[in-house]
Amino acid sequence: MKLATLSDGTKDGRLHVVSRDLKRSEPAKSAQTMIEALENWDDVEAALRDQYAALNSGSGQAFDTSKAMAPLPRAWQWLDASTYMSHSTLMDAAFGFLEKEQPDFPLMYQGMSNQFYGPTDDMPMSSEEDGIDFEAEFGILTSEVPLGADADTCAKSILLVVQINDWSLRRLAPVEMKTGFGWIRAKPACAMAPVAVTPDELGDHWRDQRVDLPLHVTWNDTKWGAASGYEMGYGFHEIAANAAYSRDLPAGTVIGGGTVSNANYREVGSSCIAEQRGIETLDTGSAKTPFMSFGDRVKMEVFAADGSPVFGTLNQQVVKA
Amino acid sequence: MKLATLSDGTKDGRLHVVSRDLKRSEPAKSAQTMIEALENWDDVEAALRDQYAALNSGSGQAFDTSKAMAPLPRAWQWLDASTYMSHSTLMDAAFGFLEKEQPDFPLMYQGMSNQFYGPTDDMPMSSEEDGIDFEAEFGILTSEVPLGADADTCAKSILLVVQINDWSLRRLAPVEMKTGFGWIRAKPACAMAPVAVTPDELGDHWRDQRVDLPLHVTWNDTKWGAASGYEMGYGFHEIAANAAYSRDLPAGTVIGGGTVSNANYREVGSSCIAEQRGIETLDTGSAKTPFMSFGDRVKMEVFAADGSPVFGTLNQQVVKA
Repeated sequence: MKLATLSDGTKDGRLHVVSRDLKRSEPAKSAQTMIEALENWDDVEAALRDQYAALNSGSGQAFDTSKAMAPLPRAWQWLDASTYMSHSTLMDAAFGFLEKEQPDFPLMYQGMSNQFYGPTDDMPMSSEEDGIDFEAEFGILTSEVPLGADADTCAKSILLVVQINDWSLRRLAPVEMKTGFGWIRAKPACAMAPVAVTPDELGDHWRDQRVDLPLHVTWNDTKWGAASGYEMGYGFHEIAANAAYSRDLPAGTVIGGGTVSNANYREVGSSCIAEQRGIETLDTGSAKTPFMSFGDRVKMEVFAADGSPVFGTLNQQVVKA
Repeated sequence: MKLATLSDGTKDGRLHVVSRDLKRSEPAKSAQTMIEALENWDDVEAALRDQYAALNSGSGQAFDTSKAMAPLPRAWQWLDASTYMSHSTLMDAAFGFLEKEQPDFPLMYQGMSNQFYGPTDDMPMSSEEDGIDFEAEFGILTSEVPLGADADTCAKSILLVVQINDWSLRRLAPVEMKTGFGWIRAKPACAMAPVAVTPDELGDHWRDQRVDLPLHVTWNDTKWGAASGYEMGYGFHEIAANAAYSRDLPAGTVIGGGTVSNANYREVGSSCIAEQRGIETLDTGSAKTPFMSFGDRVKMEVFAADGSPVFGTLNQQVVKA
């Protein structure tokens, strides 16, 4: 099943069911908003799936992506992990990590969740000097998870899969990391691709609680990367369980797997600029690729085996705040 | 003006106006919930202040603190700073800080905001082995703040002052700090004292965007500390501006000043256990005071110059989750 949120002037927008090919949609009948659906999933899922079947048979109206907000425009919690070892290796090369050894739990932080930008919203930034970078990621939206839930319980809480651009300011990030407190200034609002999908929609490409599909990234006119989401050191269920150790997770918690990265990054490319700068540093001792400028665009999309779009297109331009 | 939220079975509760002496209250007429009031402050403040004046003249009903939730039971964002130099010094002694030099911006992280416990709610914890500790703090609730707002603009956004117990798991915290990503497992939900107050309510004790009153902490039957909130290295307006550098702050953003601590900590005591352990480490080379056990209680309260209670009493017991 595929769901989107279209703008209706409210902060939470209006939940829509979208056809598999992303061509048709209609307002959800069993829930007004995505957060309402996530909070009442067991009560609303069947009716949503009925609508989805009808849409795939030709009902509904044309899906107007120009009105798409993030599928969940604001959430109570955004927990982003960094679980791709090749990403960690390259970030170490680019910036020098604090710890050379990976800890025995998923690296993760809590970021701002009160605002996820829509897929084509301009991204306001204060200064080009801050090292403006994109990060292409997969994420999940959860049901409510009780404190102490284990990974198996958390696996059942994964209601939807989303595609995220986790914006970063690379010149601020290492400075904040050194404090041990994590990031505030280095992490502006994220954005989401227009459509959230249930894990079953991914078929065999949802594997070990990971998305086993390439995430295509294009920076301006340059094909930047197409790394698979599969190489996570922890599955989404394990990331969720780490957080649930000492807190209840509210319905609609957004959990990110971190910047998608593969060990064969020289073949598949990268999901952020900093990784490329890490490769350059490994190869030549210094980074040459600059970060983004005002007016730059980044496009992120995922295709099923038959070439059809899965989450729709995330395509944002960086603008002066 | 003083405001509280009483339980009515919903997650946001019902906003009440409370008399200065905390003896009387009545449901707010111009807003149903605290978040609604904060989002529409300019429209609702005058009516709330009229109710407050009437309550101070004897209207309303008895203020039933047993029904008090946190004044803001859930928020879109909780940004906690650590701005007391004497606290940093003692935490360094207790745990060894990553950076010996303070950065030139406020140390801060984003914590869970979807749930603030009420003032007398039991605090569920997974294990006594995690180093269960309280942290007595002051905090603010803001209006909406636009990206890029400076400290002066942020000063005008400070609508209410609150008193917070920021629970910490001290055996997990240094492990997570070493990653540079900040805390997830080490930071369970916080709790708030029952009443939020406008800055003008504090009179001369609201000074340089800080609370210049002692925060009295009692651990079981032991008077633990009475440090003044004034010795912050940054005012609340400056902490807010640091966060607003790259993000809009939504109305109802909760900003903490960090564990209250004073340079004369040997006279006034501490606002957490870890500081005492830091003093013991400085004096004898090792810490002897244990962290909290299941069944332990911590009480936190603040009194005006005339001895009257300002925020009401925060009094929680630690229980097995």
